[in-house]
Amino acid sequence: MTKDFLKELKKICPKGFIDKKEELLVYSFDTSQNEEVIILPLAVVFPTNTDQISQIVKIAAKYGVSIVPRLKGTNHCGATRPTDNSIVVNFSKMDKIINIDKENLIAEVEPGVVIGDLNKELDKQGLFFAVDPSNLAVSTIGGAIALCSGGPRTYKYGNAKDWIINLTVVLADGSIVETGKNIAKNVTGYNLTSLFVGSEGTLGLISKATLKLIPKPSYRLLTLCYFDSIKQAALAATNIINSGLVPSVLDLIDKTTIETIEKFHPCNLLTEFDAALLIELDGFFECVNIENKILSKILQESDSKKIIQAKNEKENEDIWLARRSAFSALAQLKPSVVTEDIVVPKSKIVETVEFIQKLGKKYNIITAAMGHIGDGNIHPNFALDFNDPIEAENFEKLKDELFNYAIKQEGTLSAEHGIGLAKKKYLALAVDKNALELMQKIKILLDKNNIFNPKKSL
Amino acid sequence: MTKDFLKELKKICPKGFIDKKEELLVYSFDTSQNEEVIILPLAVVFPTNTDQISQIVKIAAKYGVSIVPRLKGTNHCGATRPTDNSIVVNFSKMDKIINIDKENLIAEVEPGVVIGDLNKELDKQGLFFAVDPSNLAVSTIGGAIALCSGGPRTYKYGNAKDWIINLTVVLADGSIVETGKNIAKNVTGYNLTSLFVGSEGTLGLISKATLKLIPKPSYRLLTLCYFDSIKQAALAATNIINSGLVPSVLDLIDKTTIETIEKFHPCNLLTEFDAALLIELDGFFECVNIENKILSKILQESDSKKIIQAKNEKENEDIWLARRSAFSALAQLKPSVVTEDIVVPKSKIVETVEFIQKLGKKYNIITAAMGHIGDGNIHPNFALDFNDPIEAENFEKLKDELFNYAIKQEGTLSAEHGIGLAKKKYLALAVDKNALELMQKIKILLDKNNIFNPKKSL
Repeated sequence: MTKDFLKELKKICPKGFIDKKEELLVYSFDTSQNEEVIILPLAVVFPTNTDQISQIVKIAAKYGVSIVPRLKGTNHCGATRPTDNSIVVNFSKMDKIINIDKENLIAEVEPGVVIGDLNKELDKQGLFFAVDPSNLAVSTIGGAIALCSGGPRTYKYGNAKDWIINLTVVLADGSIVETGKNIAKNVTGYNLTSLFVGSEGTLGLISKATLKLIPKPSYRLLTLCYFDSIKQAALAATNIINSGLVPSVLDLIDKTTIETIEKFHPCNLLTEFDAALLIELDGFFECVNIENKILSKILQESDSKKIIQAKNEKENEDIWLARRSAFSALAQLKPSVVTEDIVVPKSKIVETVEFIQKLGKKYNIITAAMGHIGDGNIHPNFALDFNDPIEAENFEKLKDELFNYAIKQEGTLSAEHGIGLAKKKYLALAVDKNALELMQKIKILLDKNNIFNPKKSL
Repeated sequence: MTKDFLKELKKICPKGFIDKKEELLVYSFDTSQNEEVIILPLAVVFPTNTDQISQIVKIAAKYGVSIVPRLKGTNHCGATRPTDNSIVVNFSKMDKIINIDKENLIAEVEPGVVIGDLNKELDKQGLFFAVDPSNLAVSTIGGAIALCSGGPRTYKYGNAKDWIINLTVVLADGSIVETGKNIAKNVTGYNLTSLFVGSEGTLGLISKATLKLIPKPSYRLLTLCYFDSIKQAALAATNIINSGLVPSVLDLIDKTTIETIEKFHPCNLLTEFDAALLIELDGFFECVNIENKILSKILQESDSKKIIQAKNEKENEDIWLARRSAFSALAQLKPSVVTEDIVVPKSKIVETVEFIQKLGKKYNIITAAMGHIGDGNIHPNFALDFNDPIEAENFEKLKDELFNYAIKQEGTLSAEHGIGLAKKKYLALAVDKNALELMQKIKILLDKNNIFNPKKSL
């Protein structure tokens, strides 16, 4: 039976087909921590167009095989980990920028386009796609849509749902649906686009997307400023927001993060302080300069102990490099780093970060917190060794406490990383019972045989 | 049977119940043109809380009576017109601002809150809710959610879907669902909130909403500038967008609109020009001044023949008053004014407005076009007498041509007014066949007995 299935599958994508065990192994992982038994997919296929995807879905449905959509696998929640009796549909050969329409400020792209590459192309035309996850060099449009990704610029620009205006999706019966039109403002029928964005590949396979673009801001100014406490940094962030400034980045970095980056990637970060804010202003040069005066005044009044501003592109890059090194620096401390993603009301940021720091101490796990403070979105990073059974067990307890705390603060499990396998068991705590039931009904409506990424999200 | 139903219904809302024919008559209309036979609802009920709504839904379901949700009835698409065997659920007694949370920049409100009133309250705390439909004095949150309303500030701020982060909804079985959390950035499960926003009361009854707020921009500068042609005005708008300026308003007004406003509400509009742009910049005073220099340069280079800027709040109000008088001025020409709402790619604005002007001439119907040009969203206003059978017939033909043209231009039927009864017959032309089928399946999933606003939207 499986043999017949694989034979038919290979016919669809003869040049993009893997079923050798040693090659499949790499697809049993993604960036998420693999605590469960390793499951190999039956095969990995690399479609190159929507019709092939439709054929793949039909064959999979016929044989009752599940489909796990995948690109670079950089998600933190196990959304791309194979489940029993599944194939991986790898979209990496669908990586074309189909069309950049400067006049209408839209781009049509295939899901495999890397966001950093897209923005390099857009840059040539003075355009910008505002969803830029931290890991620009690998994060793809398809992944960003599946998980409704955000990134450091979410406070000003929002996340994937705000920038995706139309999708081509292959449904469970192989039919192809266009969810909207290539028009940003559209109230013709229900908003199907937003239903698919963030659905983690559980409702259909996305083969094309239309993105909204903006003219690239002509100037960006980055400020790194230090504080004696998380509380003081959070207060400064609140003052910035209340002033009417809308920074494109408003990130909080805690002491452990600062120290670890400086230890492994020395870049003149000041380790004597307990917290830092990373703030980016963007817009016209002259306006940014005016806003910078307002910002500097606020930072001084908010008792910032040290304010460092990038004076040129090189210094700008240096600060970004430091910010983006957090994960790799932490990875030098222990075999594994788990990046978590919770969100709480902005007013609860301080106590939540302090709680996270306490949790790390309580369970003796290296804990470094950073976050997009303007959104109430905190990313605690935990460095640990899963081969140490005590540490692994402690980490489970830590996570239980962490998610329960976020929910108690009227926050929730994820702002931009998704649920996947990793947070599924907490979902019922975070989502209204009737809402969860409705989501499950929608899943069954769209995929009654549960072939699309089963066990993920809901 | 009906008698029993009404008796049970009255028990739920004894103080908010209408079933006298003469009082019901007013509820057979909304702002849309009533071309069909007048249908009276069986009753109008005024619930005051979510539980009452749930009880109403259960009783209606038991007796197979439909529910037409309604507030001020200012929609243009017949979304609030009663259908056979229906009751109107009037949310006007649910008009409380439950909570304004300045620290977290959110507000919890009941659906009956008038947006103008809300913004007056928010103003006291230096806050702003960015969805402000033109008819601020009557438009409600509930209506804006049902129709995913926009308004003149959509180009910068987006429409209702971008500012609604959580909803309490009563479903068809009377169960109550909370679609999200009071948190703007949230990817925990499917995006139910966006499914209900814009669904025109066909999927459930919304009893509470959480809105995202922003600090109120400290300064706004309004510019009215004139051009010799629509083409020249559109080119100026494109140049503004490409410059990186993000005006909070970027509206186009055609000659007929200018002339008609000036005729009936004289306010020194310059009728010798063929087109005007209304542009608002907002932000910090100093930044707006800098942006204004950039804007003025663009307008001069784009051959604007006359540039008028509001020098104080009074002049600002005068220009807005003129803009908002378009509808009432046109209403003096003929018994009825129909405001249409189409959207096309920005690059097709000029030919579309010219086509609309030609259509008016072809069918001999007074036609005045304005629109949110930054969004490609055009509102042609048609003044006519429906009692004149030739005019009424011609208008039907005109609409057919208009919507077919918009769709041919890769545009669609509505950007912010909705589908309702008025555009339902065109929906299949505008929406992908499989998408429409999926929307219909979702409708059946949520409301299998079709009690919520039947015949509307889908």
